[in-house]
Amino acid sequence: MRLGNMYGPDHTFLGVPAADPDDTRQWAAAGAAIIGAPFDGGTSHRAGCRFGPQAMRAADYLPHDGSRPSLALGVDALVDLGVVDLGDVEMPSGDVERSLAALEERVRAVAAASVVPIILGGDHTIALPDVRAVAHHVGWGRVAVIHFDAHADTGDTQWGSLYGHGTPMRRLIESGACRGDRFLQIGLRGYWPEPETLAWMAEQGMRSFEMAEVVARGLDAVLDEALLIAGDDCDAVFLSVDVDVVDPGAAPGTGTPEPGGLTSRQLLDAVRRIAMEAPLAGMDVVEVAPPYDHADITAYLGNRVVLEALGGMAWRAKQRRGDAVRHPSDPLLGRD
Amino acid sequence: MRLGNMYGPDHTFLGVPAADPDDTRQWAAAGAAIIGAPFDGGTSHRAGCRFGPQAMRAADYLPHDGSRPSLALGVDALVDLGVVDLGDVEMPSGDVERSLAALEERVRAVAAASVVPIILGGDHTIALPDVRAVAHHVGWGRVAVIHFDAHADTGDTQWGSLYGHGTPMRRLIESGACRGDRFLQIGLRGYWPEPETLAWMAEQGMRSFEMAEVVARGLDAVLDEALLIAGDDCDAVFLSVDVDVVDPGAAPGTGTPEPGGLTSRQLLDAVRRIAMEAPLAGMDVVEVAPPYDHADITAYLGNRVVLEALGGMAWRAKQRRGDAVRHPSDPLLGRD
Amino acid sequence: MRLGNMYGPDHTFLGVPAADPDDTRQWAAAGAAIIGAPFDGGTSHRAGCRFGPQAMRAADYLPHDGSRPSLALGVDALVDLGVVDLGDVEMPSGDVERSLAALEERVRAVAAASVVPIILGGDHTIALPDVRAVAHHVGWGRVAVIHFDAHADTGDTQWGSLYGHGTPMRRLIESGACRGDRFLQIGLRGYWPEPETLAWMAEQGMRSFEMAEVVARGLDAVLDEALLIAGDDCDAVFLSVDVDVVDPGAAPGTGTPEPGGLTSRQLLDAVRRIAMEAPLAGMDVVEVAPPYDHADITAYLGNRVVLEALGGMAWRAKQRRGDAVRHPSDPLLGRD
Amino acid sequence: MRLGNMYGPDHTFLGVPAADPDDTRQWAAAGAAIIGAPFDGGTSHRAGCRFGPQAMRAADYLPHDGSRPSLALGVDALVDLGVVDLGDVEMPSGDVERSLAALEERVRAVAAASVVPIILGGDHTIALPDVRAVAHHVGWGRVAVIHFDAHADTGDTQWGSLYGHGTPMRRLIESGACRGDRFLQIGLRGYWPEPETLAWMAEQGMRSFEMAEVVARGLDAVLDEALLIAGDDCDAVFLSVDVDVVDPGAAPGTGTPEPGGLTSRQLLDAVRRIAMEAPLAGMDVVEVAPPYDHADITAYLGNRVVLEALGGMAWRAKQRRGDAVRHPSDPLLGRD
Amino acid sequence: MRLGNMYGPDHTFLGVPAADPDDTRQWAAAGAAIIGAPFDGGTSHRAGCRFGPQAMRAADYLPHDGSRPSLALGVDALVDLGVVDLGDVEMPSGDVERSLAALEERVRAVAAASVVPIILGGDHTIALPDVRAVAHHVGWGRVAVIHFDAHADTGDTQWGSLYGHGTPMRRLIESGACRGDRFLQIGLRGYWPEPETLAWMAEQGMRSFEMAEVVARGLDAVLDEALLIAGDDCDAVFLSVDVDVVDPGAAPGTGTPEPGGLTSRQLLDAVRRIAMEAPLAGMDVVEVAPPYDHADITAYLGNRVVLEALGGMAWRAKQRRGDAVRHPSDPLLGRD
Amino acid sequence: MRLGNMYGPDHTFLGVPAADPDDTRQWAAAGAAIIGAPFDGGTSHRAGCRFGPQAMRAADYLPHDGSRPSLALGVDALVDLGVVDLGDVEMPSGDVERSLAALEERVRAVAAASVVPIILGGDHTIALPDVRAVAHHVGWGRVAVIHFDAHADTGDTQWGSLYGHGTPMRRLIESGACRGDRFLQIGLRGYWPEPETLAWMAEQGMRSFEMAEVVARGLDAVLDEALLIAGDDCDAVFLSVDVDVVDPGAAPGTGTPEPGGLTSRQLLDAVRRIAMEAPLAGMDVVEVAPPYDHADITAYLGNRVVLEALGGMAWRAKQRRGDAVRHPSDPLLGRD
Repeated sequence: MRLGNMYGPDHTFLGVPAADPDDTRQWAAAGAAIIGAPFDGGTSHRAGCRFGPQAMRAADYLPHDGSRPSLALGVDALVDLGVVDLGDVEMPSGDVERSLAALEERVRAVAAASVVPIILGGDHTIALPDVRAVAHHVGWGRVAVIHFDAHADTGDTQWGSLYGHGTPMRRLIESGACRGDRFLQIGLRGYWPEPETLAWMAEQGMRSFEMAEVVARGLDAVLDEALLIAGDDCDAVFLSVDVDVVDPGAAPGTGTPEPGGLTSRQLLDAVRRIAMEAPLAGMDVVEVAPPYDHADITAYLGNRVVLEALGGMAWRAKQRRGDAVRHPSDPLLGRD
Repeated sequence: MRLGNMYGPDHTFLGVPAADPDDTRQWAAAGAAIIGAPFDGGTSHRAGCRFGPQAMRAADYLPHDGSRPSLALGVDALVDLGVVDLGDVEMPSGDVERSLAALEERVRAVAAASVVPIILGGDHTIALPDVRAVAHHVGWGRVAVIHFDAHADTGDTQWGSLYGHGTPMRRLIESGACRGDRFLQIGLRGYWPEPETLAWMAEQGMRSFEMAEVVARGLDAVLDEALLIAGDDCDAVFLSVDVDVVDPGAAPGTGTPEPGGLTSRQLLDAVRRIAMEAPLAGMDVVEVAPPYDHADITAYLGNRVVLEALGGMAWRAKQRRGDAVRHPSDPLLGRD
Repeated sequence: MRLGNMYGPDHTFLGVPAADPDDTRQWAAAGAAIIGAPFDGGTSHRAGCRFGPQAMRAADYLPHDGSRPSLALGVDALVDLGVVDLGDVEMPSGDVERSLAALEERVRAVAAASVVPIILGGDHTIALPDVRAVAHHVGWGRVAVIHFDAHADTGDTQWGSLYGHGTPMRRLIESGACRGDRFLQIGLRGYWPEPETLAWMAEQGMRSFEMAEVVARGLDAVLDEALLIAGDDCDAVFLSVDVDVVDPGAAPGTGTPEPGGLTSRQLLDAVRRIAMEAPLAGMDVVEVAPPYDHADITAYLGNRVVLEALGGMAWRAKQRRGDAVRHPSDPLLGRD
Repeated sequence: MRLGNMYGPDHTFLGVPAADPDDTRQWAAAGAAIIGAPFDGGTSHRAGCRFGPQAMRAADYLPHDGSRPSLALGVDALVDLGVVDLGDVEMPSGDVERSLAALEERVRAVAAASVVPIILGGDHTIALPDVRAVAHHVGWGRVAVIHFDAHADTGDTQWGSLYGHGTPMRRLIESGACRGDRFLQIGLRGYWPEPETLAWMAEQGMRSFEMAEVVARGLDAVLDEALLIAGDDCDAVFLSVDVDVVDPGAAPGTGTPEPGGLTSRQLLDAVRRIAMEAPLAGMDVVEVAPPYDHADITAYLGNRVVLEALGGMAWRAKQRRGDAVRHPSDPLLGRD
Repeated sequence: MRLGNMYGPDHTFLGVPAADPDDTRQWAAAGAAIIGAPFDGGTSHRAGCRFGPQAMRAADYLPHDGSRPSLALGVDALVDLGVVDLGDVEMPSGDVERSLAALEERVRAVAAASVVPIILGGDHTIALPDVRAVAHHVGWGRVAVIHFDAHADTGDTQWGSLYGHGTPMRRLIESGACRGDRFLQIGLRGYWPEPETLAWMAEQGMRSFEMAEVVARGLDAVLDEALLIAGDDCDAVFLSVDVDVVDPGAAPGTGTPEPGGLTSRQLLDAVRRIAMEAPLAGMDVVEVAPPYDHADITAYLGNRVVLEALGGMAWRAKQRRGDAVRHPSDPLLGRD
Repeated sequence: MRLGNMYGPDHTFLGVPAADPDDTRQWAAAGAAIIGAPFDGGTSHRAGCRFGPQAMRAADYLPHDGSRPSLALGVDALVDLGVVDLGDVEMPSGDVERSLAALEERVRAVAAASVVPIILGGDHTIALPDVRAVAHHVGWGRVAVIHFDAHADTGDTQWGSLYGHGTPMRRLIESGACRGDRFLQIGLRGYWPEPETLAWMAEQGMRSFEMAEVVARGLDAVLDEALLIAGDDCDAVFLSVDVDVVDPGAAPGTGTPEPGGLTSRQLLDAVRRIAMEAPLAGMDVVEVAPPYDHADITAYLGNRVVLEALGGMAWRAKQRRGDAVRHPSDPLLGRD
């Protein structure tokens, strides 16, 4: 049976059709499926991102009609891809293991049907089941991960537990679901993790771009390199976006804000480009915490990150079909 | 080893001395001990009360010097009782069972030393270990519970789990730690629980005062009855205060606000009276959720609830020693 | 065709069934129908109550399952009455005349089917079409109005216009839809209207209870009188609740806050009593303005006002069927 | 020269005429004069009440036209009394002594002209110059003070200084400007001051009504007693209202909130009654701190406190002229 | 007669002289005139920008003395140009047609006197009367429009109406007041309008710079092109700035926030440059919605946009008089 | 005796050891010492930065354990330098002269021990005692000042007083503590000061980089020039950071926000670079005003500004010892 928003009234992502995850026929033809993961039991500090899925689904001022034609891309991804919303997975925040298992099972079923799962978090703990589930479908160790975040999330344990929003990337690499040397992190900064964890990361061959490097080289150059690595001997890319990669000024609604991040413009452009250039097999957007948001701006940002990714996917599909496409930086009107 | 505030910098309740829970000599002579329970993994809706302990410890504008002489009671409970702060219990919100076990162990150790535990929540799930631990000391089934709340918290399960902030009172009564017919609930209102649960409550002999009854009879009459029941064939009282018993206007910083509650004045007077008239063996103050608070007013209220209870305890001790005491409603100054 | 929430995603009042207003068969058997009136073009100061309908529909922490068993009344009004939600009326705030006409038509159709319309505002301008529509069904001049508000809303014009949230009650009485001497106002206070308007009100035989009178006599006595007048030579009562009748501390989310109002407890008890004792033919709850709300407490209050009214109606129906009923102030549990 | 609002654009209290304090002819015929005291350098905790004067002047939704006909009293105090606004006194918060001297000089000039000064604070430090200035006019030691506050403000020193919002009442009594045994405090509560200061207060013969006494006896009885004392061998009353006497739920915008206060309804009724029954010679309303306010509700409350006092004064003048007056609790309309 | 702020107390833009719009002699010699357009009846989602004019007038921490010497430009535009404030136009939000007509009449009178109108919105619906009025003076079809916005505002109808904040640019071009091929839009992004509207825009020869193009080419290059087009066969420029062109992080106080916008630095620099280089005949700043603002930062931004435009105008006048001018990017001090 | 946080409970900067300023042995070996200056009596507009020290000390989500290993620099400055926290100086905001004297004495004692003082404001008035004290140690006139700010703070007087947050830089240069031509200001913008003050600044040889110059040349080039000047015939640098140099979108929690500032990324990079390249002898971070902050993002920014400066100092020490160092823009991981 379909669970809508675990908290609050049911509504789908910008009005796309609802579907029952238990009835595959309802959604097997979709290009992508929205899955809510309203879990914040893995947070090490501020909770609240359990309300992220419903907030990201609703954050818009246009009619919730399941259509969003992109100015930049000339596609209407929700329609073109056929996006559906499978509702939330029941994930009580007090029971991390049960919750992660339920999410992994849901994502696995979706990926198995060759539908791209778009998971709305929830805290970053969910990247563990998300990527594992996709890797089951794409091939264990055959998925590269591009990870936008202020934090590496590669801690060994958190409050003595293996599971939490500070550890999923270590669990993932340990599991072999993805290779450490195909794990690309963009936007790290601040004062965590400590040297021992950095050493472990280096041993895995991880490639992490700290903000000072992003500033020095430019985000475009960083993406060039990241996409090159991701495309080398892997079959697909999983994109994991922690909204705290963006500066707290533009993304205050999050649990562990770290000053000095990307602009929202940079994140949107980067996500769009990745989806245009790489074969996305799944995505999550995490750590949107409405209680700390103001005027819903962080929820809007999360919503647009999803739309840019879907738009890039739709554009890529169109291009690969041989249809004419417009490039985002082409003049929208005039100068022909 | 002492864990200070699990989240944020360490500080004690209004500056009372810190003590290490593992070193009993540091606190065995205290009259009461503050214990932080920064857990919100049992919330069914808004989280955030994990920050309740630190907020209630800090909510004041006077120097944090471990002294608070009460105008109404003429006692300085922090000093007179000798209150210490044992810091927080490590309670990761994603692991309800481990967290509850850790808290129960801590409270049990305190109660065993004949120190009255004052637990700062956290969500109401913690009432289960709190009362169990106290009952181990006072006598299984020998503790009456006076429970201020908008909600009965007697659900059978929550998201399929036995543990959560909607179920602790059922677990308690089932366990026999306290008798159902010595369980007094004040302030219930709204639309929960459903008839089946009410029937179960009736079977246990619970006595619940819904707000319409409180309005009709007056809170003083309600307290008369409650104290009479509580004092009948029980050896002590556990006082459990969910801040949502107060109207959301005066207590907005909580997870499940229910309009139409007590005034903060009513709650403070009631708590003081109970502590003056009944033998308190333990207390918790729960569901203060700072992310939803404004200008810290809910945290202030939680802080004052604790102070009124401690003040009542100190007053009672003084009175029982035969010392002269003042009655709260006596003129503070003049008219002699 | 059904328009859900005019703003934001569609959802119904606490999950009651949605129905298409154009297809009478979907809802003609219902006991009451929710109608959203998301209009704030009549506000003389702060706007924002266009978001009142969606906020009041969603303001709860329990599952949105269309069931709300009342502790105080022992009925589940949403189920017992069979409440449906007809969605919003399209009411662009920039076009007051078109919007009021559309609303009147909708409410009239509902009332004509002997379904009690429950209109969620929106600003108080909507009382004009609401009462007119109900009077068309009950009988022109045969509906008494009980009006909770800080303001009389009997201005002659507003910014030179006949329509606005300061004038509906004058328009109504002028139209004859309801008689001035069966128009009961409770909770007025402050500095409006000026003597000329008061004189007009007196000429109509209006009975307005200013807060100082409410304090001096008690709200119960005021209700006794109001119900007596309302029941004299009228066939039904329309209940119009402006949330600003409640003190701004408990209802900050409104456009024209006036200090010194009722407590939320008083309003809830009064609404419930009216619905239990008088034949309600319609109701509106207005001026809930989410942009000025905090932690949703005003939206919760609006939601509960609706539930208390529905509960009272369900209780009254049960009582009149001869079924056993419980009185709100009876002990919920125990003392039998 | 007139200084308007010291901070922000100039505007007068609800649009009453502006007057230049240096040109007495502009305002000598007024019944009362508004004076802004935008000083928060005496706060011991949260600052921000420097913005109190401009906030209280502006807090309304009606046209700022210098007219406010009172429903309860049937007078338009702003017009009937002839109220003017002298703007702010320049009071830089970093220089307490200069600021207090400047304010005392201004208030003294106003009182000397037999115009009733209404001072908008600012923190409570200003009560010292306010009452001193009025006493210079009425007679040193001939003014009774009625003081609404959660705090006694009778500390000996604050941060080692004689001046601050915790000490003005001691300075006043020490100076002889008012007698300790004609100093009435209503609404005290909480945990300050300590016994030594209480002893000093008792020595002065102060009469302080703690909230528990207010609850036990009722506010009306308390006012009966207070007015009796105030009228005994004194020639006038100074009314000093600290907005924190009201519960933080209804007055969050203040620096030292203390849970368990009066309702805003109680304060408004009490202020009105005092102004109706006693000869007011001056008044201040203090500690409204906009940065901590929500939706301006505390500023609204401060505004209405001023209006109720002015209304009471106008009503009293009318009554003493022998004109017919209405009593607030009389029916506003109907029941004749 | 002059209407000050339609809502709240009267004050002028940063203290510039007030003038009565009906008395031309008071303002005919001014270089520019501020006009408030407190209308939000055209908003399709969040209202609140009716409070934009008063908020933008007041948003500053310096004395409101009608003087603002620009560091960057070396001019004091308020003084040099002689700026006056004509107050608000009465624009009740519930009556869009009457409101737009009143505004057009006011702006037309100002432009007819060769005074540059600076209109403070209000929602973007007002661009229709604003540009029409200016075109009446400059020449129908002889005004180029430079339009900063996240949205094209070229919808055909909104809620079935021709008027609203989604349609003014279409109405304008249809009317011939300005030519479609001299209509320059900067900062568009997101998912609106749909292809049909884009096709209509293309037919008109509009030139719209979507954010991806702005990022790719740089804002300076975009402005080069825009200014070139605007200066070709047109006699003047109207500048219309929707504050939502800026990223929501820096401009949260708006109704339809769209992530990924300009920085506030970019907008300020661009507005200044346009006013320095092009002959401005009028300007509006719209969609500043205080209820959604935080710490007034969006109001401050709107205020500075006005000041930068006025500064550029004053600088341009000075330069054209042959006086020495400083260039903004010259060192402010030193390095000579 | 050590005063912890003057307001609220005591805690140190991210958990570094507390030390008693009166017992030099406790801290003489430290590399840097945190000093709180909780004073806002010098603010010309919004107060609240008295709470800056406690907010900046606490603003983090990691354990407060006195360790913060920097990703960018590869140092743990808190540990490597040995940072201690001396608590706050008692600075009552109502007494500017006493407060500044007390602060100067404290900072002078610290500098005299060759410990680098890091002062957390408080308003910018404190720069006067801060730099004076450091100059006493380094050499009167031998300290260059690098000053990030939206405002020059070189006013002659403020409200007629020599002291306030608008005048400290003038007082400093007049005193000779630092030379005007070694005073570098970065980030100025807006409309203050007026030409007379600019002329005075020019006479002193000050070098001020307005934002338009920063944009035109790039911040790196500006820093090149600033560091060159600062290093010419001076022995050390004092770094004074007013958080309002950052755009209000990322730093809303401040008293005099000025749109169009640096990004937080730019400020962090600049501070780090200055500390890496120049010999810092002292630093202050001022004007963080928590009452105007949202989700603590401005407090976080202030905290990180301190950490970046300390990190740069630790890196510089390491480099000068000849140890291997990493450059911030080197790849954090991979690409070796």
